[in-house]
Amino acid sequence: MASEALQELIAGMRAGGPDFSADPVQARADFEALLATMPADPQVTFTAAQLAGVPTLEADTGKADAGALLYLHGGAYIAGSAAGYRGLAAEIGKVLGLPTHAIDYRLAPEAPFPAAVYDAVAAYRELLARGVPASRIVIAGDSAGGGLALATLVYLKQEGIDLPAAGYLLSPWADLSCSHPLIDAKSNADPALDKAGLIASAAHYLGDQDADHPLASPVNADLSGLPPLLVQVGSSEILLGDAVMVAERAGAAETHVRLEIYPEMLHVFQSFHFLLPEGRAALDGAGAFLKACMEGPNG
Amino acid sequence: MASEALQELIAGMRAGGPDFSADPVQARADFEALLATMPADPQVTFTAAQLAGVPTLEADTGKADAGALLYLHGGAYIAGSAAGYRGLAAEIGKVLGLPTHAIDYRLAPEAPFPAAVYDAVAAYRELLARGVPASRIVIAGDSAGGGLALATLVYLKQEGIDLPAAGYLLSPWADLSCSHPLIDAKSNADPALDKAGLIASAAHYLGDQDADHPLASPVNADLSGLPPLLVQVGSSEILLGDAVMVAERAGAAETHVRLEIYPEMLHVFQSFHFLLPEGRAALDGAGAFLKACMEGPNG
Repeated sequence: MASEALQELIAGMRAGGPDFSADPVQARADFEALLATMPADPQVTFTAAQLAGVPTLEADTGKADAGALLYLHGGAYIAGSAAGYRGLAAEIGKVLGLPTHAIDYRLAPEAPFPAAVYDAVAAYRELLARGVPASRIVIAGDSAGGGLALATLVYLKQEGIDLPAAGYLLSPWADLSCSHPLIDAKSNADPALDKAGLIASAAHYLGDQDADHPLASPVNADLSGLPPLLVQVGSSEILLGDAVMVAERAGAAETHVRLEIYPEMLHVFQSFHFLLPEGRAALDGAGAFLKACMEGPNG
Repeated sequence: MASEALQELIAGMRAGGPDFSADPVQARADFEALLATMPADPQVTFTAAQLAGVPTLEADTGKADAGALLYLHGGAYIAGSAAGYRGLAAEIGKVLGLPTHAIDYRLAPEAPFPAAVYDAVAAYRELLARGVPASRIVIAGDSAGGGLALATLVYLKQEGIDLPAAGYLLSPWADLSCSHPLIDAKSNADPALDKAGLIASAAHYLGDQDADHPLASPVNADLSGLPPLLVQVGSSEILLGDAVMVAERAGAAETHVRLEIYPEMLHVFQSFHFLLPEGRAALDGAGAFLKACMEGPNG
């Protein structure tokens, strides 16, 4: 049975939210207004900066020489911002003990695929250029940012660039064709996302590109040779199938995968770590798993 | 790259092993001879006993009042024994801090489905009758025993019997129709199992029953309302798809699931914990997860 906090959260989401199937600029503004209501740890200091020309928000969540968390926010590739996700990004940096770099990759429709991938890759390479060891970097992202994190890992591997210690994908959107049967099966259960919004956003991001392109929908990429992946997803979201596909295909390709499915949880429930014990537990468990990856054979 | 220990293990398996697609009594004898070569912790004392008339091997891996691990061995429902799996069962009991009860459920073809399910259920109910709190019991099993563990949980739920704290499924065989595409895709990679052996064993176990029966192939069961499930599988085994199906379907049904896919690992690699660091790490990680389940809301 859902906790009172979860029930209130769901009721609030059902009462209304940004419409990703309508005008993308309006959706972006509405989504940003929603994100502005999310708290961030007042103990954390955030600083505007940049990595290779990509705007970032840095958070002092770890010692400067400890490594780096590269965070890629959600928002269906058309919305969201490093500032809007600073609370979640900083919580992840805290459980990892790593300084946080949340990046403002370019958004569609103004900057369609592969602009976001290029920005994430450029930011990661800049971290390496500054002397951060790859084995002390974690790339994380939620929703579209989770798919983007996986696409970034695939791109880095293809280019022979040193890979980070791990990838952490929160409710990743990794198949822009939106074809998994659980999208329809979970449509009534999901208070946050709808298929029409995903399809419209995918069209903005893809432009003329095919939805099956492996760097747009990394479930279609060669997922061998990647660092360990932690995938967390709620059972009450239409992207459950995307998370399962990532786990199955990466695992079949000999990549170490842990998939965690949380009952009754909704899209990127870790954002509500301050309300939902499940969100807090998921972040703490992620910290333990990812720190072990940094201490692993490549750490 | 596979470690030297893993390469030797794979070479040994490829050199020959029990043929599950031939005579089941011969396969049983050959498999038992193989199991007899597996070590067990000399610090652990094993005692022949019974639970509700089901023969068991008990191991003193925890204080008598700490709870119970109910272990269901592998062997494709036609082979294997509590004695043959005592080393693995006791290791799991040790990481949990629970007394271990490995049961000798009846085997096919002499005792086809649902004899194994009935024996597992009877043994579990006897633990409850002896006063062991359900919240301090973990049901675990490997291969056929992993599918049997899941079927047992489904049966207990259907009957309204108090459920254990968690299920731990090691490389579960949970779809006796053997229809997942990864069975063929991984046939060359898997040194231990082959599809013909599974299909022949399934026929012995099923008798006149359909392979899709939800208590024979619990991927087809209603997997809602179950305790948390930990599923571990190797990427080099034909049952990878069974593990993914269990995770996807249980998760979609609002059951808490953690699926761990280990690169290069083979069927029930945890059996080789004394040779393979991955096997040791998987057992230790399982201990942490399952102990948290026993301390959880139902613990």
